[in-house]
Amino acid sequence: MNLPAIRLVEVGPRDGLQNEKAVMPLVAKVAFVDALSAAGLKEIEAGAFVSPAAVPQMADSAEVFESIVRHEGVVYSALVPNEKGLDRALDADADKIAVFTAASETFNRRNINASVAESIERFKPVLERTLKMELPVRGYISTAFYCPFEGKVAPEKVLPVAQKLLDMGVEELSIGDTIGRAVPDDVRRLLELLLKSVPAEKIFLHFHDTYGMAAANALTAWREFSISGFDSSSGGLGGCPYAPGATGNVATEDLIFAFKASGARVPADLAKIQAAAKALEPKLGRGLASHLSKIDLTSVPPSSRP
Amino acid sequence: MNLPAIRLVEVGPRDGLQNEKAVMPLVAKVAFVDALSAAGLKEIEAGAFVSPAAVPQMADSAEVFESIVRHEGVVYSALVPNEKGLDRALDADADKIAVFTAASETFNRRNINASVAESIERFKPVLERTLKMELPVRGYISTAFYCPFEGKVAPEKVLPVAQKLLDMGVEELSIGDTIGRAVPDDVRRLLELLLKSVPAEKIFLHFHDTYGMAAANALTAWREFSISGFDSSSGGLGGCPYAPGATGNVATEDLIFAFKASGARVPADLAKIQAAAKALEPKLGRGLASHLSKIDLTSVPPSSRP
Repeated sequence: MNLPAIRLVEVGPRDGLQNEKAVMPLVAKVAFVDALSAAGLKEIEAGAFVSPAAVPQMADSAEVFESIVRHEGVVYSALVPNEKGLDRALDADADKIAVFTAASETFNRRNINASVAESIERFKPVLERTLKMELPVRGYISTAFYCPFEGKVAPEKVLPVAQKLLDMGVEELSIGDTIGRAVPDDVRRLLELLLKSVPAEKIFLHFHDTYGMAAANALTAWREFSISGFDSSSGGLGGCPYAPGATGNVATEDLIFAFKASGARVPADLAKIQAAAKALEPKLGRGLASHLSKIDLTSVPPSSRP
Repeated sequence: MNLPAIRLVEVGPRDGLQNEKAVMPLVAKVAFVDALSAAGLKEIEAGAFVSPAAVPQMADSAEVFESIVRHEGVVYSALVPNEKGLDRALDADADKIAVFTAASETFNRRNINASVAESIERFKPVLERTLKMELPVRGYISTAFYCPFEGKVAPEKVLPVAQKLLDMGVEELSIGDTIGRAVPDDVRRLLELLLKSVPAEKIFLHFHDTYGMAAANALTAWREFSISGFDSSSGGLGGCPYAPGATGNVATEDLIFAFKASGARVPADLAKIQAAAKALEPKLGRGLASHLSKIDLTSVPPSSRP
């Protein structure tokens, strides 16, 4: 089989840290992003320009962008909710912009007090400006498999949101299993529908490991549908607000292991990512949730190392 | 697809508790086994008749067998290393006997100070007696994918051990990924070889979730090879002696979730198993490692419940 190399989008510094109780100090964030760049990751969502009152964890995103060492060939992106956020992201010299909506009406309403259509209207002016500037934009679609309030979300609800975002000029989609409830059959059903009209390279899958299915889901998408784009969070930073104490974002090191051990090319250094995440542990107030954070690969015989 | 219903062998009371630092009091063990029977599990490895000096966690296995409430249709099995263990298991009225070896010479040597061939010789008299009594026996083959000392174990090393055990009258095999290092491609390679000469219904796969791959491996074996037999440990009891702090045996509740959510018939009650494992948590000295132990399914919308 000639399967594509894996393209990882590291979301730990943004999606991960935003959902941690502990507010990470600026120096730790900067060291984290720098270590991730040095580990070979090619895209890092380094912060969010959202309300500091609502999301204190991201209040210093401008300082993060200012202080990190930009590695050549690495894309540093920022999440923005509106034009004000875009202004701040442009000031910070973000390489890429991320906007967000969801496939579930109830989730959107509870998350950002807007319908799906209203949420898309909100970032329309953002897209109009980024398009003129030729600044790439990714569009997050949360709850694309299951909603913590509505339950199962039909693939038919995801497709029109995906199409709308692409029509508006979004370059790529991040399709999220926000509560980590999807299994490979859910992935198959959604991809079978989406791939009829969306090119595989525009799809990034954003899995959470809440139910322990992230590796199975990611390998299914790659092996059976040639999907190469995946979001992940080093150390498994993030948690799940709908299941306190449970695992959240799939860990970058766990995905790298799963793919490398399955023969995929993954341009990132597993040991360096393990170390980058480990360095945050003392300040997190909890142990890292990832599987690989508990394994010392140097003690593993060479033929067992991924 | 017409895939087989899942046959689970619960190994928490034996393989799980044997590998926990905390020695569980007898009453807690008995309550655990009884709760697992009530949860619908059809086979429970309830104890081991091994040296109490070497394995203090299993010293009271005779009392466990004496005190549990035997549910009709449930098989209560016991692990034995030799004829002396068999005598004790027969005294305890075990319904089934388990013997063990490994595919890796180094692992066998370090684990029980015997070569693979010697370890098989040791339980030969056990099998001769159980065959006469028509008592069913399962044979464990540890390190069937990776060895903590040797690294990768070739499928060609597993096949002769499997054949030898079956020739000697073992009824079923439990093929173990002792360090949880296998990925679906490893499962495919081993099953492609084994299934040339071993019927699928004689194979039970014994996965550990150390690297987070257990669900992916189990679904692959079921979906692609119609394997229906899986070992699991409620609560993920067990740990991994080769990666301290890491996840060990795949949790029964995690496997049940993965299979039920994938449309499999699994004759066991997920919520009751969650509760059975949860009851041990205060005495364990650590939180349960399973994914499902952290999720309150009653708070999940009905269409998201497995």
